[in-house]
Amino acid sequence: MALTATERTTLKRLPERGSHERATVRSILDEGIVCHVGFATERGPVVIPTTYGRVGDDLYLHGSPASRMLRTLKHGVPVCVTVTLVDALVLARSTFHHSINYRSVVVFGTAVEVTDPDEKAAALAAFVEHIVPGRTADARPATIKEVSGTLVLRLALAEASAKVRVGPPIDDEEDLALPVWAGVLPFTARPGPARPDAFVPDDVEVPAYVAAYDRPCS
Amino acid sequence: MALTATERTTLKRLPERGSHERATVRSILDEGIVCHVGFATERGPVVIPTTYGRVGDDLYLHGSPASRMLRTLKHGVPVCVTVTLVDALVLARSTFHHSINYRSVVVFGTAVEVTDPDEKAAALAAFVEHIVPGRTADARPATIKEVSGTLVLRLALAEASAKVRVGPPIDDEEDLALPVWAGVLPFTARPGPARPDAFVPDDVEVPAYVAAYDRPCS
Repeated sequence: MALTATERTTLKRLPERGSHERATVRSILDEGIVCHVGFATERGPVVIPTTYGRVGDDLYLHGSPASRMLRTLKHGVPVCVTVTLVDALVLARSTFHHSINYRSVVVFGTAVEVTDPDEKAAALAAFVEHIVPGRTADARPATIKEVSGTLVLRLALAEASAKVRVGPPIDDEEDLALPVWAGVLPFTARPGPARPDAFVPDDVEVPAYVAAYDRPCS
Repeated sequence: MALTATERTTLKRLPERGSHERATVRSILDEGIVCHVGFATERGPVVIPTTYGRVGDDLYLHGSPASRMLRTLKHGVPVCVTVTLVDALVLARSTFHHSINYRSVVVFGTAVEVTDPDEKAAALAAFVEHIVPGRTADARPATIKEVSGTLVLRLALAEASAKVRVGPPIDDEEDLALPVWAGVLPFTARPGPARPDAFVPDDVEVPAYVAAYDRPCS
């Protein structure tokens, strides 16, 4: 099922790389770890990296109530949230045609503060499950004080689109015979090994969801 | 040697994570592959991922002269460029204290178009060398037509700062005895194996700078 294309989410250049498919947008968001949040301030644009969670067709941002970013966004300031995955380096025969295979999602909208305690608790769990699936069953849940001490914002995945480059380099035909190696160097984020902190009791082993961690999470 | 701190590059929260050290800023920029470029448009803020190059204390952006982003920025619109490296997932005993070890750089300024052919050629080489050191000695250099068909912008690394989180989870003291595994799961971008494209002659081997590729580049 596709999201509705808008002026802002329609690619002007290389439109064949664009997608409004909900499944594509979701899978890129779920694989990413940090997003980049852009908004205007009195002193110009700001782009801040932060973690996020997704529940259905909503994206959640969170942090301290003292966070300048969250305090600004909760007033309904327009925001752009971008998530980018680098999949491979693309080595062409010519300097000019070098590229990157990547998948990115851009979300436009305005965020609203989440005040309902149940939605807030679900969002807080989503932040952790997004990063380490299975973790919330082990970790101590947030207390009422911690929940109320966290500012959570919701941004609808309504005006969103994906952009994807895949495949080999696209060289000029007259360069194909050059004796230059060309191809793709895949680039994968690999986890591990896990390092316990100093206070973990000896009989507490590394959980399976940490030892077998991979991304995208299965 | 440190960059001069400004209102925009001074952390209000957790200032101990901030740095204006030039060497820190440079090393994060050099290890990253894509940056996120934020700027204001008539329709609100936009955050676009793109590759970049660094030469000394200048950051370069490039692309097609038809790129909306580059066409906007070359008119001196204020820009914020952010590069983020995810180093590790930080698993605390409490849901609340989960975190990410990361290194990020934020650069504020206005970009200017590079018109000098020598500077432009050096920037184009820097884009490729930034991604694959050693590559420009092998690849066909850009032609005059390709150079003139590329829009290159320069952004001074003058108003820039880094933010870094390292170390184990920071749990509340009363949680330390919980029988919950806690620690750090390092997260490293690993390249390879390289895949040649269909037209590489049989006697052209994978170059050493591809076969032994690692990031940060040595």
